[in-house]
Amino acid sequence: MTQEMESGDIGLIGLGVMGLNLAQNISEKGFSVIGHDLSSSTAFTKTFLDYCWNLRDFIKKLKKPRKIMLLLPAGQAVQDTIDALLPYLEPNDLIVDAGNSHFEDTLRRYKALETQNINFFGLGISGGEAGARNGASLMGAGDPNVFESIKPILEAVAARDEHNNICALRLGNSPEVGHFVKMVHNSIEYAEMQLISETYSLFSETKDYSNEKISDVLANWRDDLEGSFLLEATSQVLKKTDEVTGTPLIDMIEDIAEQKGTGKWGTVSAINIGVAAPTLYEAVSSRFISQYKTDRLAASKIYSPKVSKSTLISQNSIKGAFSAAKICAFAQGFQLMAIANLEYSWDLKLREVAQVWKAGCILRGNILDEIVKAFDRNTSLSNLLLDSGLSKKLKNSVELLRLVVSEGALCGLPLAAHTSSLSYFDTYTKARLPINLVQAQRDFFGSHGYRRIDKRGTFHSTWEN
Amino acid sequence: MTQEMESGDIGLIGLGVMGLNLAQNISEKGFSVIGHDLSSSTAFTKTFLDYCWNLRDFIKKLKKPRKIMLLLPAGQAVQDTIDALLPYLEPNDLIVDAGNSHFEDTLRRYKALETQNINFFGLGISGGEAGARNGASLMGAGDPNVFESIKPILEAVAARDEHNNICALRLGNSPEVGHFVKMVHNSIEYAEMQLISETYSLFSETKDYSNEKISDVLANWRDDLEGSFLLEATSQVLKKTDEVTGTPLIDMIEDIAEQKGTGKWGTVSAINIGVAAPTLYEAVSSRFISQYKTDRLAASKIYSPKVSKSTLISQNSIKGAFSAAKICAFAQGFQLMAIANLEYSWDLKLREVAQVWKAGCILRGNILDEIVKAFDRNTSLSNLLLDSGLSKKLKNSVELLRLVVSEGALCGLPLAAHTSSLSYFDTYTKARLPINLVQAQRDFFGSHGYRRIDKRGTFHSTWEN
Repeated sequence: MTQEMESGDIGLIGLGVMGLNLAQNISEKGFSVIGHDLSSSTAFTKTFLDYCWNLRDFIKKLKKPRKIMLLLPAGQAVQDTIDALLPYLEPNDLIVDAGNSHFEDTLRRYKALETQNINFFGLGISGGEAGARNGASLMGAGDPNVFESIKPILEAVAARDEHNNICALRLGNSPEVGHFVKMVHNSIEYAEMQLISETYSLFSETKDYSNEKISDVLANWRDDLEGSFLLEATSQVLKKTDEVTGTPLIDMIEDIAEQKGTGKWGTVSAINIGVAAPTLYEAVSSRFISQYKTDRLAASKIYSPKVSKSTLISQNSIKGAFSAAKICAFAQGFQLMAIANLEYSWDLKLREVAQVWKAGCILRGNILDEIVKAFDRNTSLSNLLLDSGLSKKLKNSVELLRLVVSEGALCGLPLAAHTSSLSYFDTYTKARLPINLVQAQRDFFGSHGYRRIDKRGTFHSTWEN
Repeated sequence: MTQEMESGDIGLIGLGVMGLNLAQNISEKGFSVIGHDLSSSTAFTKTFLDYCWNLRDFIKKLKKPRKIMLLLPAGQAVQDTIDALLPYLEPNDLIVDAGNSHFEDTLRRYKALETQNINFFGLGISGGEAGARNGASLMGAGDPNVFESIKPILEAVAARDEHNNICALRLGNSPEVGHFVKMVHNSIEYAEMQLISETYSLFSETKDYSNEKISDVLANWRDDLEGSFLLEATSQVLKKTDEVTGTPLIDMIEDIAEQKGTGKWGTVSAINIGVAAPTLYEAVSSRFISQYKTDRLAASKIYSPKVSKSTLISQNSIKGAFSAAKICAFAQGFQLMAIANLEYSWDLKLREVAQVWKAGCILRGNILDEIVKAFDRNTSLSNLLLDSGLSKKLKNSVELLRLVVSEGALCGLPLAAHTSSLSYFDTYTKARLPINLVQAQRDFFGSHGYRRIDKRGTFHSTWEN
């Protein structure tokens, strides 16, 4: 009887899209899955899991030490669930938070549970519903022995790259690292999505390409750095016909973008530790502006903007511009991790991050091969812009980015992510910036002092005549 | 004896540059000032204040109910000082935090002190050292009766605009509003400084103007929206000769910009409540990049960037570009306050903010007259871009911003603040954004759903063929 009761290898709480697909994936790999979710209407019909409406029954069905994975919306739901679980748990039981929790919450929860001898493991999962079902990218963090205990399950459901490397790793030395890396993943994902949407507008508005034609073009951007899951997804999206109207579905979708939080957090984290990430920022900010639809309609009546066609912008220049801007976005994300690693002493290896993103995740694409190589060449590379391989690619493509940004400005087409990538590149590669003037102004009105180029120390001047 | 002891109208803690200048200002207006600072080396020599090394003596010298103003670096120093003061204070005594505290700290401290019947007033001060000495802009917030009790002192040391309006106001209905407004002030200040430094580089790098010549040009930008304190300060800065080398001092200043926090906070606050503020962000981010000097030097060796000259960029286009970009920066700052006002129900009147910034503060300049008028026309204006007066100015100047951004991109000159202002403008004024594609992608890989343009509700599609 007891044996029958304790049959579950792992318990899953949160049976939404991600949870159900992951449960099916785990189950197919030979592990028995117990599921719990108060609000799922379909979970109890699934054959690949043993559904328990009651939390106490759910717990009873798990083998000891218990492994419980949460796939819940970040925030209160995670905390409430942990609090509800605690009375039933015993020392050495394990909670894996596999949602998009804020990394600071993960560290705090780890410490709180540690005092009760409950293990806690932070796990970032990327790949969306298909990844959860067929192979995801798993960014784990926590105690090494805890990782060993769930490694068989994680490795079984993870994606594998073309060399059969498993995209499930324990990253760094602290439990919040996995969620931090996932947050940065999402920030870069926002940026790539924004860049693709600007690419789409370059084709449709400055060149008058149809959705079908854009889809065909993007389907061919496979071989070079541009090639990625998101680009392929876009190509498919643009081909989809709306069943209601018979027109391309993309044209029927409202231009208001939503977001769940990780993109905001990534940008805020970058600001907090002094990392410039303008392309990641513009992706978040563009979604904000999209939300002010009423204001936009009012503004469009006042200014009557018209995007003009451009003969200077070619297919090839749009491709190069996208490639250059994308490298800059990845450079910002990886620098964010590099500086965080210094700031928090995580012992995070960025090559492992690139490796774990090579398959399964939303960011997967050719650029990650180059990034792995970059960290092979220099494990402590501070910025991808300084890598010999990526810089070679960038040197050529950035000239096309220049052209597209320049023309976009004249045509009246907003290209926030492309332009911020170019500004980033031009600022980052400039030996002497005009920001000496900012320091002079600060000293002028606030006596904040300045440094000199010819001697050490801080100086102050009386500026007024 | 007791009477002699309790002679001080106000106590000032923190006698740095701001504190000493403010003390002198207050004293000259006929109030007796008691000063306290553990680390000031010069305060005890000043005749305009009664300096007490000992906190207990300092407190004893203040008339009851006591008024104590803190001019301390934000964070621990403020908290430690409040904690040290508390044992000596009596009900109805007042602490005014006149530093750049984070608005959330101010609200928290207000609530904590309220339980002990100690009054707390949050006061943002702008104007730098000269403002503190001769007339500053004072952004206050707290209980109305508390404001009345210190109003005579605040109004005496505040700046006055050309109509003799006093630039000291109690803003909104909650004690943190003043520090929030000051934070936004500083964010816009960062943006204006960055825009000016880019303006300077447009002249010096694409047109080869000397510092002297740039100074003369900027000195003439007085009459239109461009005219401002910061522009005048810049004009003076560019004329200053270095006493050591005999060359222009600006050329001897290191191109690494520092920051104290309010600019970061402003950008983070905007992200938290969903407000797009890309120009404010780029000003902060550009300072970050300036700090990576070693990386920049390495990158400049790899990419060998050269800024080319431009004949298309004229004095007039640089001026117009600056004007347009500056309106966009102010629009972002004011929208940040508008949305915060909705979010936190502060009953903040944005016309009052513009009014209190008209004189004394670092942002003072012609644009504020227009902004006051804009809120006279519509007290609940959601964005300055929608105002009839400012939009008229912007319609013309934005075409010059287009030209400058376009040329800057081709010339290789980083213009992060200018370009982000243009992206902001073009995104904000566009009735239909390509961000429908982002929603489609989100639904493709994450089943996040999308809205349609032809009917209400949230929809989901199976995208793959």
